[in-house]
Amino acid sequence: MTAPPTTIPDAAQLTARLIRCPSVTPDEGGALVLLADLLGAAGFECHRVDREGVPNLFARWGARGARSFGFNGHTDVVPPGDPASWTHPPFSGHEEDGWIWGRGATDMKSGVAAFAAAAIGFVTETPPDGAVILAITGDEEGPGKHGTRALLDWMAATGERMDVCIVGEPSNPDRLGEMIKIGRRGSMTLRIEAQGVQGHAAYPHRARNPIHALLELLHELTAAPLDAGTAHFDPSGLQVTTVDCGNPASNVIPERARATVNIRFNDAQSSESLDRMVRERAAAISARTGVDFAIATEVSGESFLTAPGPFVDLVAGVVRQETGLDPALSTSGGTSDARFVKDHCPVLEFGLVGHFMHQVDERVPAEQVRQLARIYRRILERYFA
Amino acid sequence: MTAPPTTIPDAAQLTARLIRCPSVTPDEGGALVLLADLLGAAGFECHRVDREGVPNLFARWGARGARSFGFNGHTDVVPPGDPASWTHPPFSGHEEDGWIWGRGATDMKSGVAAFAAAAIGFVTETPPDGAVILAITGDEEGPGKHGTRALLDWMAATGERMDVCIVGEPSNPDRLGEMIKIGRRGSMTLRIEAQGVQGHAAYPHRARNPIHALLELLHELTAAPLDAGTAHFDPSGLQVTTVDCGNPASNVIPERARATVNIRFNDAQSSESLDRMVRERAAAISARTGVDFAIATEVSGESFLTAPGPFVDLVAGVVRQETGLDPALSTSGGTSDARFVKDHCPVLEFGLVGHFMHQVDERVPAEQVRQLARIYRRILERYFA
Repeated sequence: MTAPPTTIPDAAQLTARLIRCPSVTPDEGGALVLLADLLGAAGFECHRVDREGVPNLFARWGARGARSFGFNGHTDVVPPGDPASWTHPPFSGHEEDGWIWGRGATDMKSGVAAFAAAAIGFVTETPPDGAVILAITGDEEGPGKHGTRALLDWMAATGERMDVCIVGEPSNPDRLGEMIKIGRRGSMTLRIEAQGVQGHAAYPHRARNPIHALLELLHELTAAPLDAGTAHFDPSGLQVTTVDCGNPASNVIPERARATVNIRFNDAQSSESLDRMVRERAAAISARTGVDFAIATEVSGESFLTAPGPFVDLVAGVVRQETGLDPALSTSGGTSDARFVKDHCPVLEFGLVGHFMHQVDERVPAEQVRQLARIYRRILERYFA
Repeated sequence: MTAPPTTIPDAAQLTARLIRCPSVTPDEGGALVLLADLLGAAGFECHRVDREGVPNLFARWGARGARSFGFNGHTDVVPPGDPASWTHPPFSGHEEDGWIWGRGATDMKSGVAAFAAAAIGFVTETPPDGAVILAITGDEEGPGKHGTRALLDWMAATGERMDVCIVGEPSNPDRLGEMIKIGRRGSMTLRIEAQGVQGHAAYPHRARNPIHALLELLHELTAAPLDAGTAHFDPSGLQVTTVDCGNPASNVIPERARATVNIRFNDAQSSESLDRMVRERAAAISARTGVDFAIATEVSGESFLTAPGPFVDLVAGVVRQETGLDPALSTSGGTSDARFVKDHCPVLEFGLVGHFMHQVDERVPAEQVRQLARIYRRILERYFA
C-alpha cells in the first residue's frame, strides 16, 4: 500500500488561502494549522512550539541532524486599520487581474507560501539527501519575544539545526531579483533624563536648566554623522524620536527633561560603543553644567553580516539566472528575525518586492509569488546538488 | 466708646500664616481674605477687585485723593512641583531654627506680610497726614492680565491714586540692603511648533524629523548671548522652559514637536526685534530642512527704567541707615508688576533676598522679614515727615 501522491500547492493560491486566515498578531487565525496540514501531508514532521500565547510552527523533512537548509518567516500580520478604506476586504484574498489582495499579501504570507510550496515540491519530486526545515512564527510584527527566538531556542534544546537559512521577508525595493539582504544594521534605543535645578526663568544663574544641557547633548549627537558607512553598510543613523518636559509655566525653569534616541548602527559600531559614547558626552556636559543625566539603554539587536562566500554566491547565482538581474548585496532597512537566526547559522534575506507593506490595499502580483517559489526551489536543488 | 486697640501683626508670623493659604495662581487660597481682615481691623478701607477669576485686593488708610504712598505685591505662588521633593510640606509654613519654610516664603508672601505689618504699625502708632495704599494681586505669577493691571485700571476709574509706589518683590541677590531695582528688563514668551513628516526611524530619508529642526533652532538661540548688556542693564537672557513631543513609539519619527522660549531683554532689544530674529532663524532652518515652524509670541512687557531722583534717594537712605549697606541701583532680574505701576507713578522695587524663589524647599529667615518690615516702616515715616 502506498500513500496517495502529494499535491504540490501553487504558491499564489496558497497565498490567497493564508490571507483568508485573520492572523493579526498574535492570533493564529488558522494560518499555521493550514501550513501544518499541507506540510504534514508531504512528509514533514511538524511541531507547534507555542509560547506565552504566541503560535509557532516547526516543520522538518528528512532526518534530524542531517545536512539541512532552513527557511524562516511569519504568518502574523499588522492590523488592517479601517476595513472600509480597502478596495477589497483585507482578509478576502481577492484575486483580480493577476493580483492577490489583502493584509499579508506582501508582508509576508506570500513569502511563506512561496517557500512552503517550493519545499513541498522539492522533497516530493526530487527528495534530497538531507533535511529541509521551515521555522514559521506567529509573532514577528509584535514584541517578538516568544516568536522566532523561542523557536530557535526550542530547536537548540531538541537537537534541531539548520546549516543555512533564508528569511523570506520582502527584500527587493522595486523589482524581484535586485536585492539580497546579507545583514542588518543594529538597533538600540536610549531613554535620557536630564535633571537640573528648578528656578525662575529670569534668574537662570540660580537654576540649572536641564533642557539646555539636554539640547547640548542632542545637538552633539545629531550635528554630525556617527560614521561614513562601511564596506557593506550605510552610515549609522540617529533619530531623536521624542523630547518631553511637560512644564506648563513659561517663567519657570523645570527640574527635568527627557528624550528618546533611536540609533540604527552598522558594523563600525556596537551597542556598547554607542552607549559608552553617549554616556561620555553626557558626563562631559554634566561636569560643565551641573545637570545630571540618567540613561537607560535597550538593545533590539546588534548589527550582523553574512559575509559574501559560497552561500551568498549560490543564492545570488540562482536569482541572477531566474530574474536576469544582478542582485545587490545590501544591509539596508529595519530589523527582522534574521537578527535571531544569525546566532545559529549563516542567514540571508530574499523575498518579494516590498511595495504596500503595512499599507491599505496591500496586494501582490500572483506571478511574482510563483517566480519567488521557483527561485526558492532552484536554491534548494543547487544546495543539495 | 472707643475701638479696641489694634494688634500690630508680626511680619514673620504673618508670612507663615499666608504660606498656609494654598494660593497657587489663580487660587485665592484664603490669603487675600486674611489680609483684608487684618487691614480692615486697622482702619483700612478694603475692596476686592476680582476680575475673570483673578482675586485682587485694594486697601487704603486715609482719605481718597490725599497725598499717598503705595505698596504693590502678590499673594499667588507658582506650583510647588512634587511635594515629596520638599523637606517640609510646601504649604506648611513650618518654622524651625529661625527659618520659615514653604512656597511663597521668598516670592513673595513675606514681602506682602512685611509691608502689611509696616503699614498697620505706621497708621496705628503714628497716623500720617495722608494715605497709605496697598494694591495686592492674586495673579502675578500667571498671565497677569487681570491682576495688578486690572487693579490699577480700577483705581484710575474710581479716583484712587498713588504718588509713589514700592513693589515688595525680592530685590536683593544675597544680603538685605544691597540692591534696589529702578527698572526691569522686558519679558516675552515664544511658543514654537515644528511640523515635519512622520516616518519610520530606520528610514529617516523618507521622513522629516521636526525634533532635529527644532533642536537646531534652539541650539542657535542658546549657543551665544543675545547681547553684552547696556549702561543700566545686564545682558539679555533666553531660557527654553519646555520642549514637548509626546511620541511613545521609539521606532517612529513624529510629525510635530513644540518648545517654549522665554526671553528677558534689555533696552538694546525690543520684543519686535527679538521676534523678528527668531522668525528669521526659523525660516532659514525651514528652507534647509523642509520642516515648518509656527511661532506664537506673547509679550509680557518691554524693558523700562525709573530714573534716579528724590524718591530713590529717600528709599536708598533708609536702606543704608537700616542695613549699613549702600544699595546698588539695578535693573536686573525678571519682570514684575512694576511694569504696570510705572505707567501710573514713580515705582521702585525693594524686598527680601531672592534665594530659593520658585525652587523646592523655598524658605526665608524670619528675622530678615522683620528687618524688611522695619525698613518699610521707616520709609513711610520719612515720606510723610
